[in-house]
This record gives sequence, C-alpha cells and structure tokens, in this order.
Amino acid sequence: MNNLNQTIVAPTTNISTQAISLIRISGDDSFNIINKLLKTKIKEEKNVWVRKMFDGQELVDEVVLTSFVSPASFTGENVVEIACHGGILNTQRIINLIIKSGARMANKGEFSQRAFLNNKIDLIQAEGINDLIFAKNELALKIGVNNMSGAHNQSIINLKGNLLDIISRIQVSIDYPDYDDVEGSSISELTKALSDINEEVNNLLKRSKMALKNTNGIKTAIVGKTNVGKSSLLNALLNEDKAIVTDIHGTTRDIVTGDINLENISLNLIDTAGIRETADIVEGLGIEKSLKMIDDAELILFVIDYKAINDKENKMIFDKLKGKNHILVFNKSEFISEEEKNKINKEQTNYVYTSAINNDIDNLIKRIEEMHINEELIKNDSLILINLEQISLVEQVKDRLDRSLRAITDGMPIDIVNVDLHEAWDYLNQLIGEQYDEEIIDNIFKKYCLGK
Amino acid sequence: MNNLNQTIVAPTTNISTQAISLIRISGDDSFNIINKLLKTKIKEEKNVWVRKMFDGQELVDEVVLTSFVSPASFTGENVVEIACHGGILNTQRIINLIIKSGARMANKGEFSQRAFLNNKIDLIQAEGINDLIFAKNELALKIGVNNMSGAHNQSIINLKGNLLDIISRIQVSIDYPDYDDVEGSSISELTKALSDINEEVNNLLKRSKMALKNTNGIKTAIVGKTNVGKSSLLNALLNEDKAIVTDIHGTTRDIVTGDINLENISLNLIDTAGIRETADIVEGLGIEKSLKMIDDAELILFVIDYKAINDKENKMIFDKLKGKNHILVFNKSEFISEEEKNKINKEQTNYVYTSAINNDIDNLIKRIEEMHINEELIKNDSLILINLEQISLVEQVKDRLDRSLRAITDGMPIDIVNVDLHEAWDYLNQLIGEQYDEEIIDNIFKKYCLGK
Repeated sequence: MNNLNQTIVAPTTNISTQAISLIRISGDDSFNIINKLLKTKIKEEKNVWVRKMFDGQELVDEVVLTSFVSPASFTGENVVEIACHGGILNTQRIINLIIKSGARMANKGEFSQRAFLNNKIDLIQAEGINDLIFAKNELALKIGVNNMSGAHNQSIINLKGNLLDIISRIQVSIDYPDYDDVEGSSISELTKALSDINEEVNNLLKRSKMALKNTNGIKTAIVGKTNVGKSSLLNALLNEDKAIVTDIHGTTRDIVTGDINLENISLNLIDTAGIRETADIVEGLGIEKSLKMIDDAELILFVIDYKAINDKENKMIFDKLKGKNHILVFNKSEFISEEEKNKINKEQTNYVYTSAINNDIDNLIKRIEEMHINEELIKNDSLILINLEQISLVEQVKDRLDRSLRAITDGMPIDIVNVDLHEAWDYLNQLIGEQYDEEIIDNIFKKYCLGK
Repeated sequence: MNNLNQTIVAPTTNISTQAISLIRISGDDSFNIINKLLKTKIKEEKNVWVRKMFDGQELVDEVVLTSFVSPASFTGENVVEIACHGGILNTQRIINLIIKSGARMANKGEFSQRAFLNNKIDLIQAEGINDLIFAKNELALKIGVNNMSGAHNQSIINLKGNLLDIISRIQVSIDYPDYDDVEGSSISELTKALSDINEEVNNLLKRSKMALKNTNGIKTAIVGKTNVGKSSLLNALLNEDKAIVTDIHGTTRDIVTGDINLENISLNLIDTAGIRETADIVEGLGIEKSLKMIDDAELILFVIDYKAINDKENKMIFDKLKGKNHILVFNKSEFISEEEKNKINKEQTNYVYTSAINNDIDNLIKRIEEMHINEELIKNDSLILINLEQISLVEQVKDRLDRSLRAITDGMPIDIVNVDLHEAWDYLNQLIGEQYDEEIIDNIFKKYCLGK
C-alpha cells in the first residue's frame, strides 16, 4: 500500500503540445506546496485563483488554480488543480517544481485509490470512471457513467442484505440445533430465497457478459466470393462508426486495429491487415481465406449474390457456417427481384438485404443489434459490469450459490451450505470494495491512467 | 474575421484517453449554454462548481466547472471551463452537447484572437504563449514566458515614442518650410537620434535571430572516420537531452526527427534516419557521407583521433570544413598524452576534448553554447522574438530606418525621409498589434492550437 501521508502530484491530461495542461496535487500538504511557488498565496478554501507561478524570482507561468478542501474533494484530501499552459517542457517543468516543493509523483490510479480508501467512491464507481474514460461506444459510455454515479449499487447492497439474512438464519439453526428447520423458515423456503438471489446474480452475469462483448468488440468476419460487395460493406460500416467527430483534432479511427464502433456495439474485424490502405484487399479475399476466417469469428457476415447461391464455393461456405453465429447478407438488393425475394423468404432464415454501395445497411446493423443486445442493455436501468475482474467476481458468487443449492438438494449438512454462502458474501463485498486485500486493490488501480 | 457575437467552444487539451479533459466555452452565452446541461444551475460569477451534467434526463458526466465573468477572463468574455472525465468518446459527446446548446466550434487560436481583439493581450503576448507551448528547450520556454507576461513590451513602446517624436518634428518642418532645420534639432541631431533607434532595432534583430536558431535547432552534422566514437558522442548528447522527464507518461523523444534539446540550444541532427534503431548507423557512416553532410550543416562536429590527424581522409574533411562553422572534437581524450595535447594546442584553434563513452562531453556543450549564445540571451532581460513573422517585421523596421538614414546622408528632401519613417512606425505597430489587417491577424492565430 502506498503511503497516504505523502502529498502526490501528476498530470491529469496527457503531456503534449496543447493549449492547456492540467496537473493535480492531493494530500495534506497541497496548499503549502503550491504556495511555495506563488508570491500571492492562496487560502485553504474551495475557490478558483488566477496566479503567476514563480521558481524563486523567475516567472514560470500564469496559471488558474482550483482548490478543494478535505474532505470535500475527489480524493477526500486537500486538492489543488493547476491549469497551466500546455506544451511538453512547460508541463514537465511545473511538475518538477511541485516535486521539488515536497510532493512525490503519483502512481497510476493513485488519486482514485485514495478516493476509494477515503470512502469517497466504492469500487464499482471507481471502475465506472475507468470504463467511461476507455469507452469505445455509446453503450460502454452509458454503463461507465451509470456505474460512476453509483446509480445501481443498491442492487448489490440488496443482494448482500438478502444473503446476510439467510446466513444469519442458518447460523441460528447451527447454534441451536434443537430446532427442526432453519430458523424461521423451512428448507423449501430457504431454497426459494436462495434461488431468487441466484437468479438475480445470474441475470447480472448474463447482461454483463453480453455488454462486455459488445463494448470490447465482437470478432467479426466479412466473408463471401469476390465481387459480391465485401469492400463496399466495410466502407458502409466505417461510415457508421460513431467514435469519430471529424472536426475534432487529435482523434483517430481505430480501424488500424480493426475496430468499427457502432452506437451500441463494437465490431472487431478479423484479418484487417492493410485495411486502411485499401478496402480492395477485403474485396479480393478468396474463398479459402473466407473458410479460414470463419473459424476465428464470433460473428460472420456472409455476403452473397442470390443468383449464385448454389455455387460450389457458396455451398462450401454454407457448410462451414453450420452452428456458427452468422447473418446472410444479400447485397446489391436493388438487383433482386420480388420473385427472388419470395424464394429467399421461403429458403432462408437469418438474412438481410443491403445495398452497401448506397450506404444502405440499416437492416444489417439492426439485425446485429437484435442478435447481441437486449432491452436491458439499452435501458441501462440495472447494474451492468463491463470489466473482466468484476465479472469474474460475480461468477464466483454464482458458483458458491450454485454449490449451496446443490448441497441443500443433496441433503448435505447445513453448516456445509453455510461455508459456501459465506464465500459468496465475501465475493460480493470484494466486488463493491467493502472488503479487500491491499495487493488486489493496488493491482486494480494500477491499470488506471496516470493522474486518475 | 470571425463573428465575435457567437459563443465558441473547443477542447483545450488534446482529445485522448486520459484522466481529465478540459473544454472551454467563451462568449456572451457561456452561462446560458452550460446551464442548459445542468439541473442545478451555476451563477454568473467567478467561481468553481462541482456539477452533474445531463443530456435531458440522462446523466452524462460529473464535472468541475470554473467560471469567469467578462471582462475578467482570458478572452475578456464570459468563460466557462469544464473539467470532464477524459476519454475520446466522453469528451466528444460533451462538446457536441455544448454545440447543440448553442455554441459553435472554435477555430484554431480563436480564444487568443478574442483576447487580443478585446485588448486583454497584445500580439507579442499572444505569440509568447504560443512560443511557450511549443518550446523545445529552456531558452524558448523562458522567452515564451517573458513575452507572455509582457515584461519587455516597454522597449517597443519606447522605440515607438522616440520614433514618433522624430516624425512629429519632421512634420513640423515640412509644414513650416521657412525653418532651416528640422524643428528643434539640426540634421546631425536627427541623424544621431535615428541611429540610436536603429541600433536598438538592430540589437533586437540580432539577438532574436540568434535565439530563433537556438530554439528552432541548429542543423548539426557529426562527421569523422569510422571508429572515432561518433555513435558514443550521439549517445552522450542524447543523455543531455533536457526535453524528457522519463517518469512522465505520454512524452516522446524528438530523436525521430533528429532533435537533441540541450538546455539553451537545440541541435537538429542531419541525416538521422534510423537513428533510433541503432546509433551504429552513425558510427558506420563513411568518409563520403561525412563530406556530403558538411554541405548541409550549420555546425559540424568533426570527431577525430589525433593519432590519425594527417590521414588522407581527415585531410579531405579538413579541406571541406574551411570557412564552415565547426568544432574539432578530440574524442577518447583519456588516450591523448600531455605531449600530444601540447601539439594540438599549437596546431589547432577551435577544438575540445571529450570522452563520449564516459559521457564526458561538457567541454563540447560549453563550446557549442559559447559559439551560439551570448549573455543577452541567457539573461533574458531584453525583448527577444523567436518567430519568423515577428522577426520579419523587425527586419522591415530596420530596412526603413536604414533607408531613411541613407536618404539623409544623400541629402534627399526631408519628406522622402518621412515616408520611410512612417512605414517603420507602421511595422512597429503591427509587431505589437496596435494596427492590423484582419486577414493577417486571422493568419497569425490560425497557427495556434485548437482551444488556445
């Protein structure tokens, strides 16, 4: 655990050539340290101050300071934030001056870690902030914001309450074995109560896993014979990419790594080497390549020309697709007659019509969303977790609940059941951060940005 | 000219994955616009506010707002600055919401342009901020800070005062040609006064050109035979690079483009392709390459082994160096005997001893600084300009003063002299921004960062 007594400093914006950089100081000594660099001192109060900053007698910069007094700050400590002029050298110089004045460089995530240790935020909120910062699509952004705000933490608290109730009753029946039943309830009532909790945990797990996939990116392959319009489809999907506001400087498309970020779902395109240079590479992919890509994909968009649906090559692809998550994309829909559409309707199930060259791919996006997103994700009115560590804790909770239910069914002694329930309780506490191991906490916060 | 009535918005930090992003709103409507996104409104006063931001009923982010009221703000307008959680999508979303609420996206440099148009800063201060942000070494940083603060603007104002005095007196003698002399002074007094002004302008020009070179980077070639230690010298110079604080994330060395930033001087290394991969490439450069590099360089570091000083190859390099700005670097100084040093002392002039492999290159750096930096630059107590547009205006001033002095010497009519002096006066006004052409002003501010 890092020493909470030290006052820490870090840039909260990346250090680069930019109009303004932000630097945060947090700790008991924040005001003393910043005042060493000012001729006109600031007071220990929540306020905004325009000041000249000096290194001895030498003017360093003209800055805006925002100050917060413990405990009413993000970290719960005294905090001074410095908006200085941007630029690599200037920002570094000011950080160095603050370090010389008595602060030490913060570790990654250390401000959030202090906020957590000072009970300003719980672990779900801390992780929410991190999810928000790293969000690639709207869904991730909304989940991050919700979790940051603590909007749905009550559900975990309720789960804990219900579980504790059961544990307490079991404890009484262990301590007073004369009773026939578990205190205040029959075994069947106990089973019912546990099953209810388990179902809720299971729902949390299901929607979280679904959301994780949609926010992280679904491994997607665009396959099909040459000249069916695979590259046009890729271009149309790129046009739908929501992660870009073209006017704003400093943003880059993720297509280098093969990501397309739609509103509520990200697609991680398989085999996109060189995709930026020319979409023709995708167009040019032959049938063998298609067959190979299908193996790796979680979702296959099979672009097909109805007139050639019975080709040897298309049949090979159809064979390979069996049991795989896929959508048939009848592209160049403007050339498909009504009669053909009637036939398709009878013969095929999971298909859509598109005209990629005209950017008409709404049907496809709608279908992708139908297959991967349910109402719960969009409505965002229940807790959803989108990082692996949190989801794995929920899995542990579910595993212990499953085991306890099996133990009851198998007629195992009630104190065996109780061990599992205690463990489930511990994992719930870890999830929200009410019970933690210092090393685990250190590791959680290390993955955060510097300055967060 | 952009419409000053519109309220503008831009990120003042680069948009990237980082703890916090800063967004600035400036204009009459700043408070109205931000309040559309808040349930708990903020008041029109200088203050800091912690608020939840909403898009309709949907929570968007928890932000810190800093507000300034016209005219007491950077731009002189109502300003609200938003510190929101970083991340590309979140920052873009909030900017889009602000635009939807009535602001328009700012152009590059538009905040500074408004500050200038509202008389909050003059042009030298505006350029100072820009120099500060782009500073690559300490010298540039100090000059930027000084100019931002307006510390030395008085010298321009004094120059203008003195020049105006002369112009007025000439005007009187033109209006009242009965007088023999220029009003209140003989021709020789006039010449003396003009020469004084010209000398001051010339000094400004000289130190500015010197500073420009040192801050922009001096084209430097490291040449010599193989195995004399060129790569060790490069590595030792890299170790002296001041532009890096290794602990701080997000910073990159400039060596990709071949820059080494010493404290008061930057070296722009010639022919550094691949220098990052292996310094051996430099080591491996042969004699032909050396000869070629000398042509392009403003400074040549000729690394030489004294024992081979009379080699055919070294002689070729010596020949090529004639009349060129260079330093002889006797490297591996630990292997040079006292006797040899005595000989070197008699035979050579501009030489230093180094032991690059031991990082002992202080002599070399001192010599480079002696050759390129004078006391005035280091002391920084006079105005120094380090951008081309400003320097070119000073050149125009000097050109007109030179012409007017020649005209007096040549006995030209005094009204001819006066035309030149009027132009010199105009250029001084342009320099400080008291007289400007809208298009020129637009162009000056366009080169600034977005959000500046």
